[in-house]
Amino acid sequence: MRPFIHDDFLLETDTARELYVRHARDLPIVDFHCHLSPELMAANHRFRSITEVWLEGDNYKWRAMRACGVPERLVSGEGSDWEKFEAWARVVPETLRNPLFHWTAMELHRPFGIDTLLSPATARETFDRCNERLQSEDSFTTMGLLRSWRVAVVCSTDDPVDSLDAHRELARRSDQATRVYPTWRPDAGLSFDDPRAWNAWVGKLEAASNGVVRSFGDLVEALEARHRVFHELGCRASDHGLETLPPPAAYSDSSVSSSFDALRAGRSLDSGPALALQAALLHRLAVMDFERGWVQQFHLGAYRNVSSRLMAKLGPNVGGDSMGDFEMARGLAAFLDGLDGEEKLARTILYNLNPRDNELFATMAGNFNDGTVPGKMQYGASWWFLDQKDGIEAQLRAVSNLGVLSRFVGMITDSRSFLSYSRHDYFRRILCNLLGNDVKLGLVPDDREALGRLVTAVCFTNARDFFRFPLGSVANQ
Amino acid sequence: MRPFIHDDFLLETDTARELYVRHARDLPIVDFHCHLSPELMAANHRFRSITEVWLEGDNYKWRAMRACGVPERLVSGEGSDWEKFEAWARVVPETLRNPLFHWTAMELHRPFGIDTLLSPATARETFDRCNERLQSEDSFTTMGLLRSWRVAVVCSTDDPVDSLDAHRELARRSDQATRVYPTWRPDAGLSFDDPRAWNAWVGKLEAASNGVVRSFGDLVEALEARHRVFHELGCRASDHGLETLPPPAAYSDSSVSSSFDALRAGRSLDSGPALALQAALLHRLAVMDFERGWVQQFHLGAYRNVSSRLMAKLGPNVGGDSMGDFEMARGLAAFLDGLDGEEKLARTILYNLNPRDNELFATMAGNFNDGTVPGKMQYGASWWFLDQKDGIEAQLRAVSNLGVLSRFVGMITDSRSFLSYSRHDYFRRILCNLLGNDVKLGLVPDDREALGRLVTAVCFTNARDFFRFPLGSVANQ
Amino acid sequence: MRPFIHDDFLLETDTARELYVRHARDLPIVDFHCHLSPELMAANHRFRSITEVWLEGDNYKWRAMRACGVPERLVSGEGSDWEKFEAWARVVPETLRNPLFHWTAMELHRPFGIDTLLSPATARETFDRCNERLQSEDSFTTMGLLRSWRVAVVCSTDDPVDSLDAHRELARRSDQATRVYPTWRPDAGLSFDDPRAWNAWVGKLEAASNGVVRSFGDLVEALEARHRVFHELGCRASDHGLETLPPPAAYSDSSVSSSFDALRAGRSLDSGPALALQAALLHRLAVMDFERGWVQQFHLGAYRNVSSRLMAKLGPNVGGDSMGDFEMARGLAAFLDGLDGEEKLARTILYNLNPRDNELFATMAGNFNDGTVPGKMQYGASWWFLDQKDGIEAQLRAVSNLGVLSRFVGMITDSRSFLSYSRHDYFRRILCNLLGNDVKLGLVPDDREALGRLVTAVCFTNARDFFRFPLGSVANQ
Repeated sequence: MRPFIHDDFLLETDTARELYVRHARDLPIVDFHCHLSPELMAANHRFRSITEVWLEGDNYKWRAMRACGVPERLVSGEGSDWEKFEAWARVVPETLRNPLFHWTAMELHRPFGIDTLLSPATARETFDRCNERLQSEDSFTTMGLLRSWRVAVVCSTDDPVDSLDAHRELARRSDQATRVYPTWRPDAGLSFDDPRAWNAWVGKLEAASNGVVRSFGDLVEALEARHRVFHELGCRASDHGLETLPPPAAYSDSSVSSSFDALRAGRSLDSGPALALQAALLHRLAVMDFERGWVQQFHLGAYRNVSSRLMAKLGPNVGGDSMGDFEMARGLAAFLDGLDGEEKLARTILYNLNPRDNELFATMAGNFNDGTVPGKMQYGASWWFLDQKDGIEAQLRAVSNLGVLSRFVGMITDSRSFLSYSRHDYFRRILCNLLGNDVKLGLVPDDREALGRLVTAVCFTNARDFFRFPLGSVANQ
Repeated sequence: MRPFIHDDFLLETDTARELYVRHARDLPIVDFHCHLSPELMAANHRFRSITEVWLEGDNYKWRAMRACGVPERLVSGEGSDWEKFEAWARVVPETLRNPLFHWTAMELHRPFGIDTLLSPATARETFDRCNERLQSEDSFTTMGLLRSWRVAVVCSTDDPVDSLDAHRELARRSDQATRVYPTWRPDAGLSFDDPRAWNAWVGKLEAASNGVVRSFGDLVEALEARHRVFHELGCRASDHGLETLPPPAAYSDSSVSSSFDALRAGRSLDSGPALALQAALLHRLAVMDFERGWVQQFHLGAYRNVSSRLMAKLGPNVGGDSMGDFEMARGLAAFLDGLDGEEKLARTILYNLNPRDNELFATMAGNFNDGTVPGKMQYGASWWFLDQKDGIEAQLRAVSNLGVLSRFVGMITDSRSFLSYSRHDYFRRILCNLLGNDVKLGLVPDDREALGRLVTAVCFTNARDFFRFPLGSVANQ
Repeated sequence: MRPFIHDDFLLETDTARELYVRHARDLPIVDFHCHLSPELMAANHRFRSITEVWLEGDNYKWRAMRACGVPERLVSGEGSDWEKFEAWARVVPETLRNPLFHWTAMELHRPFGIDTLLSPATARETFDRCNERLQSEDSFTTMGLLRSWRVAVVCSTDDPVDSLDAHRELARRSDQATRVYPTWRPDAGLSFDDPRAWNAWVGKLEAASNGVVRSFGDLVEALEARHRVFHELGCRASDHGLETLPPPAAYSDSSVSSSFDALRAGRSLDSGPALALQAALLHRLAVMDFERGWVQQFHLGAYRNVSSRLMAKLGPNVGGDSMGDFEMARGLAAFLDGLDGEEKLARTILYNLNPRDNELFATMAGNFNDGTVPGKMQYGASWWFLDQKDGIEAQLRAVSNLGVLSRFVGMITDSRSFLSYSRHDYFRRILCNLLGNDVKLGLVPDDREALGRLVTAVCFTNARDFFRFPLGSVANQ
């Protein structure tokens, strides 16, 4: 019997198989948004165990474990690597129809070469075999894993106040098989809920930029200085994680100034002034992105830290987040239209978390294409909860029906794990399968070369051309 | 030619057929949420006609009839049983692609054994044959129907002020083939729009609890007394029908008190104080549920009594209700997070009516699993308008992709009709079919035993274990 | 190799093919909502080129061109007919999976008889061949195209202040193969954002109605006069393009009066009074529709003129519009319930743009069926962004599951182009295909006559009976 993950996994038609093998499977990966640790890459970290690389900080798996009644000790707690792995092995067979089941099997298949499904019965053997490879083989270090997946570019996610030391070290390596660039993510500077935390962040910004931030103008100037440093280290993209973009609001230089002053003095802002200050700062940051030719990205729709208990105990990103139902259209329109009117709208990717807004996002992006750059305005890939077959297909349908699929810049891992690169393979298979079924139903012409070009564009060349950063040498091998 | 409803109805693959026959078809039913009348069960009521059991108060059929131009006399009016049935028979062929078409055929097939499709041509014969069985056979009384469907548990829906006399009588029966339990549904006590109606309800609560309700504390105490009585009669679940949960709002004991006092004095509350009072009362009720180990259920998203004309003429639940587009995330988060923080969060099922919020609900539930009980937080089954193949599949997809399907507690009838038990069969077929197609597409391993366990869990054992009430003896036959 | 558009295009099963050929393909078309120019019809305009008929003012194609990096000169600018056509030919192969790809191929297939796919390689030959037919053949004038598509009725979209001269001329023709009627669309009179524009419109209304508008009563009276004139010219439907219906609000005659007075004096209204004035006026207009036995239509959910740059440069409807996320339920309920309570609710079609609200709309419409007219309350066809296979199927699913599909009045082009009639063919194929697949899966009985009746009803007879206007003679040929 053939294993669960096999050459034709997810590929229902001959057309899909041909497209995948000839035009998708072996392409390099441009992973232009993820949360991999620059430090672990700079150190070419070797993992002590499959538990470290697979279960530490993986909020997808943690949610599933809690849902199956696994106590917190074996989820995020002080259980041993083996105990936690074994608990996960008990949960895996429960996750049928969840992407975790696919991801688990795919990640064991590649890079570990393990095709037996994980379960209590196979847990010990799997644990030992994975650990042996992780501990001994060069292709299982952080950079080894990236090279073996043919990852030409990794963009990590970095705060403007970060020192970027790890990135500096990464840029200095002689081996540039995989290039690593920072991404500018100033969320902490745009979050005014906790004046103390915000002022602490401003303090770090002062230190990082060797400046003093006494006014809104100082703030913008300090950020601008950091933006330049990011650029020098190869950064070509910003990213923002927000519930939604602030609704249209009139604000003046003086109202923004006085909101800034209050906040800098440690006072809380009311909702109106806070949103106006956020809008003003977002606008300034967007103009910086435009001026340096960067891509701006927005990850919208997440309702974070919903579980106060988890947040207090474990911090953010531990499994207590969900989708929100925020108003989207007006804020997006106000933000993008303002920049477009000034001819300062950077190439943009809008990512959406609640799938009920897929079509809204796809049409909103389309409003601001201006003929200057093919695919300038992007409705971005399915992420987080939507990174599964149904979610990916729904995003591809929205892009296809309401935009131009052939210009789509494609998939990202958005992952914290060095084992997640099979998600690019997952996406490629799903895309090829979709097109194969289209051919079967007569919805697109059976022109393999044209379809092949589309696949290659979406899986690799569009992202390469959109971001314009130098690729690692692994792209040429 | 085989009849429309046949053994393989909805089962497209051999895998689906095998799963259904071996692991689903013959399971007992735990119908943990419906609107069956305890009085009709206590009296083991015998129906005078198919019109009585099928058309009286069936707002699904009424809507379809009105949409097809049937005058109200033959819908809810004084038409004879035959006239109304005949009007319905004219409408049935018009309902192709609506679940009513399936339900009608399924309910004639079982229990009536009629496989000709209902239409004007077959109306008279169908009417007579159904009536004959209803009037003469023991398996066609209310309790007979439940037993023949192997319904181990029925949970009716009851107001805290109900006497529960019928439940008392049901608990006393020697024949406990089907156990009947009340469900605590205090909607009337949480609806403050009409101070007169609310005070009338408080008056009934005073009578039922032998107490006086002069303060918010008295109200909680009186409810607590009734909660205990419900528990003694086997109730293990509460249920709430609300548009949405109240948004996060700070309230104090004194603000709640003064809102209560105003309302008790017959004055209307503004929206803010009303929502705060509702939040305060919901919290107290949720703590009661937790303390007694009950399951709390929330049916959210319905926009009720939209047609004032129908409401004035016929009252609630007559076909003038639809889906709303209420804000969901913040209210759900505030409510659940508050309880979770106090470690008073009961096992919970969240039902959603507008399918655009399916994914939001599934992820919101997942935030509060804490490892104490497998499947503690449930995104509940498709109900009302969504109780059809597309709706059921969409809910199963959301649970699968964003939660853990194998822990799902499964289907409910949510029905007012004793003929609706085929909806459990409908659900079981749809679930097995989904899995059969997954196997065919290679999305899940072809492990029939594992899939069979999943099917049995979702169709029966999860609900049994989640609610922890004694089952009727029919479960063991 | 058979061409991309062939007899069986979109028809996956024998059942679908049979239904299409026998019950759908040759039916007349009742296009009860579009934006065709009455002037071009009255003049029986002959197009100078395929660019004129295909690309001028086609915001769908313009969006795709901009997304593919085509400069504005070749989109809406001063490029020559050939340059623009050639630019479009370069974009077409990029639009795989977008409805534009299907529409383009379908429109070349019929009426032009061209089956080679449009691409840079075929552009010149296609351009020349199309132009030759457009310039020389009688079946390629505006009225020739309508007749050859067997369009029995066209309803254009007209402002109450329009002279209707073109309609008068159209009504006078000896050849009534295709009847052309106006539709009453008073959007300009309901938009109060720009008092100057509104007052200019009122000025035109005064001229058109030979009256003076000094009060709200005058306004209603002037509109009533125009409503009568529209009726005399065969108009049997109104239409409104709104983001959403105004939320429930109490208003009095005097508050409406004073809002009117302020606006008429050129002052801006705050949001509250503006919405109340809109609600009051909509109600009056709806009563007029009821009194004259018209159908009222509402196109809701579009977020228009999002790109201020495009709006300033090119005006409305040029590709800068998208879907909004407006609150829908309360406004719809308040409006419809008010009319229903007075027994003044006209036959109604509700069109929805954001597909997340499909189910809400379908259930909302169903609330107000009253048994007087079969299919009185309609959830209307997919339009604009949703006029594609996925969008059409989603609308049909919502109508089917939540309403009565067999009473659905079916498709509209909603188009500005005389080449868009293949969209009716598109819809008919999709409908037949859906039913064919239902038969294959056993979801509906394989009763070809019953299914054929449903198809014919949805594709033609329901609309004919719903609108009750005389059909053009082409319906009888």
